[in-house]
Amino acid sequence: MHGNPKPTLAGAATPALVLDLGRLKANCERMKNRCRELGARLRPHMKTLKSIDAVRYAIDPSHGGIAVATLNEAEYFAKRGLTDIQCAVCISPDKLPRAVDILRGAPRFSFFVDSVQTAQRVVEVARSRSSPLRVWLEIDSGEHRTGVAAEDPSVLEIVRVLNQPAVVFEGVATHAGHSYRARTPEQLRDVANRERIAVVRAAQKLRAAGLPVEGVSVGSTPTAVHLSNTEGITEVRAGVYMAGDLFQVALGSLRLEDVAVTVLATVISHNPALNQIVVDAGALALSKDRSTAVGPGPDMGYGLVLDLLGHRLASDLTIIDVHQEHGEIRSNSRIPFEHLPIGSKVRILPNHVCMTAAMYEHYLVVEGSDAVEDIWERTNGWS
Amino acid sequence: MHGNPKPTLAGAATPALVLDLGRLKANCERMKNRCRELGARLRPHMKTLKSIDAVRYAIDPSHGGIAVATLNEAEYFAKRGLTDIQCAVCISPDKLPRAVDILRGAPRFSFFVDSVQTAQRVVEVARSRSSPLRVWLEIDSGEHRTGVAAEDPSVLEIVRVLNQPAVVFEGVATHAGHSYRARTPEQLRDVANRERIAVVRAAQKLRAAGLPVEGVSVGSTPTAVHLSNTEGITEVRAGVYMAGDLFQVALGSLRLEDVAVTVLATVISHNPALNQIVVDAGALALSKDRSTAVGPGPDMGYGLVLDLLGHRLASDLTIIDVHQEHGEIRSNSRIPFEHLPIGSKVRILPNHVCMTAAMYEHYLVVEGSDAVEDIWERTNGWS
Repeated sequence: MHGNPKPTLAGAATPALVLDLGRLKANCERMKNRCRELGARLRPHMKTLKSIDAVRYAIDPSHGGIAVATLNEAEYFAKRGLTDIQCAVCISPDKLPRAVDILRGAPRFSFFVDSVQTAQRVVEVARSRSSPLRVWLEIDSGEHRTGVAAEDPSVLEIVRVLNQPAVVFEGVATHAGHSYRARTPEQLRDVANRERIAVVRAAQKLRAAGLPVEGVSVGSTPTAVHLSNTEGITEVRAGVYMAGDLFQVALGSLRLEDVAVTVLATVISHNPALNQIVVDAGALALSKDRSTAVGPGPDMGYGLVLDLLGHRLASDLTIIDVHQEHGEIRSNSRIPFEHLPIGSKVRILPNHVCMTAAMYEHYLVVEGSDAVEDIWERTNGWS
Repeated sequence: MHGNPKPTLAGAATPALVLDLGRLKANCERMKNRCRELGARLRPHMKTLKSIDAVRYAIDPSHGGIAVATLNEAEYFAKRGLTDIQCAVCISPDKLPRAVDILRGAPRFSFFVDSVQTAQRVVEVARSRSSPLRVWLEIDSGEHRTGVAAEDPSVLEIVRVLNQPAVVFEGVATHAGHSYRARTPEQLRDVANRERIAVVRAAQKLRAAGLPVEGVSVGSTPTAVHLSNTEGITEVRAGVYMAGDLFQVALGSLRLEDVAVTVLATVISHNPALNQIVVDAGALALSKDRSTAVGPGPDMGYGLVLDLLGHRLASDLTIIDVHQEHGEIRSNSRIPFEHLPIGSKVRILPNHVCMTAAMYEHYLVVEGSDAVEDIWERTNGWS
C-alpha cells in the first residue's frame, strides 16, 4: 500500500471485511501466554482467518505448527512456506493423493482418521511412496461428530493398522466442539476437563498396549480459555480467538472490545415510519449464522452495529433481518437516523466470524483508525 | 473440457457444486413460456447463478436484459457483453462513480433509488457526464425492506427530482420478497396480486402528475409462478427458479425433481452406535440457511441427501447438523451404512441455493449422469 493519501474505510467499497491489527495481535499474544502458563504449546487453527499474514502473529514459537480444516487451506499454507500443518478433519481415501502432494511442500503435513477402513487405505498409499504419511487418530470427547470414543476397541485396532514404517502415527487428537453448547463457565471448565481426560485416556490405553504415542492434542477456543490442567497434553488447538465474535463473547472467550473482525457496510435506505435502516450487508455479507439466538448471552440478531471506527452506538442496534444483499436494522427505541444518513458507513460485529469471513477474499487492515494500513488476502473454498 | 476419459463426479474433489444442465434448461424454458403466456417479458435475475454460461439459457429473447443484486455482478456481466443490466438494489451515493464506469460497458445499466437524497446525488453525478444515468424508483409492495409505498408522497418527489435530461427514469419496480413468508397457494396469489397493484398504482400516480413511466417491473420466483394477471406490468424479474431449492419446492415454485443445483460431498466418517454418517459438506459448503424449518413443507435440516446421480435414497436422509466442514446425517430409521461407505459420494439438495452457491467459484455441469460435461465459472463477492 503505497502512495498518498492512504485509503480509508470511509472510501472503501462495501460490504468489506475489516481486521483490527492491534486487537488481532493482542488476542494472539493472550492465547500464547495462556498456553505458556498452562505449560502447553499452541497450534493455532487457521480455519477462521485463512490468511498467511495472520499466521505470523498466531504462530507459537515454541511449536511452529498450525491446524487447518481443509486440504485447500493446507495447500495454501504449504505453498507459502509452512511445514507443520495439521488438517484437523478425518480424511477420506479419495483425498489421499492430494495429501501426498501437500507433503512435498510441507513435510510435516498430517491429517485425522477415525476408522480402520481409512487407516488401511492410508497404509496402502504410504507404502507406495518414499516418505511417510503422518496421521492422528481422532478421539470423540463428547461432541459426537467424528472420532472414536477412548473406550472404543477400535482405538487399538486403528493404531495397530497404522503401526507401519511407512506411516508416522502422530498421536491422538480431539475437539470439544460441544463447548459451544455450554452455557456457564462451570460447564465450560467441565467440557475442557473431559476433553483432556478423553484424549489422555486414549493415549494411556495405546501406550499400555505397547503402541507409542507422542502427540496428545486438544482444542477449541472456549476450552482453551477455560482449561485449568494440561497434564498429559502436548498441544492446544484453537482458532476463533484470533478474531473473536459475538458468540465467543457470550461464551466468555474474550470481551466485546477484543473482537478484531467486523463487516463494513453502507446505509442504503431509511424508513422512519418503520423505524428502520437498511444496509448493504445482508445474508451473504454476514452469513445466516444465528449463534447468539441460542447462546448464553443476548440475541444479537445477525450482528451488532457499530460506528465507522468500531465504537458502540449510543443505543445498541442489531441487524434484525437479512435478505441476500440487505440487512435490516430495527429497534424498540428510536433509531438515530440523523447520525446514520444514507451513504454513511457502519461496522457490524458478526455472530460467528468463521462463517462471515468466508465470504471475503481480503481483509482491510486497520489499527484503531479509519486508515486502511494494509490489505491481507485469505483463501476460501475447497479446490 | 478435452481429453479422455471425461472427468466424473465420482472422481471430483469435494465439496463441489453440481449443476444439472437439462434441469436448468427446462426451468428456464418453463419460466420464459409462463411469462409469454402471461403477456409479460422476463428479466432473469442472475443473483442466484451469477454465471455468464447460465445467462444464455435464462435470457428472454423478447427482453434481452438481466437483473443483478451487486455492482460486482453488474461489472462481471458487463465485461462479458451484456448491455441491459438492472441492479435491483437501492444504490448509495458513494457507489455512483462505480455505476458510471459500468455504463461505459453496459449502456443500459440501471439501478434503484428510494429517497430524494440519493436521487439528488444521482442528478448531480449525471450532469457531470455525457451519457445519462438510468434509474428505477423502488416501490415497497409489502415486504417493508426498501422502497417507498405507492401512496407515499415521496413517489412524486423522487421522480420530480429525477425528471432531468441527464437522467433516464426507467420506471417503477418492486420485489414481493414477503412471498417467502406465504404458506399457501392462495396467499401466494394474493401477494402476487398486491405486488402488481402496488407498482401499477405508483405508475398511474406518476402519469397522472405528468411524469412519464415506461417500465413497470415486478418479481420474485414465487409470485412469478403464482401471478395470474399482468395488466400494467412490462417485465417480471425472477432468478432462483433457474436452480431451485428445497424452500422453493415447499412454496410450490417447482418440483423436487426440477432442482438443478446440488452439493457433491464425500462420506468421511461412520458412527453406527449413533446411527450417524458424517460428510465433508458442512456449514460453509451448505450455508446455515434453515428456510425449510419455517416453511410450509417438511423440515429438511441443512439439506436433503441424494445419491451420486441425484436420485432420492430409499428412506430420505437429511443433514441434521453442521459444523464448519462437517455435515451430520442422522435418521430415526436405520441408516444404510453399507450403501454409503467412507469415501463414497452423495449429493445434497440445499435449503436456499442463493446462499449455498455463493460458496463456490465453479459449477460441475452434468446432464443426468456421472460425467462432468463442462465447468462453469461464477462470480462472488463485492469487490
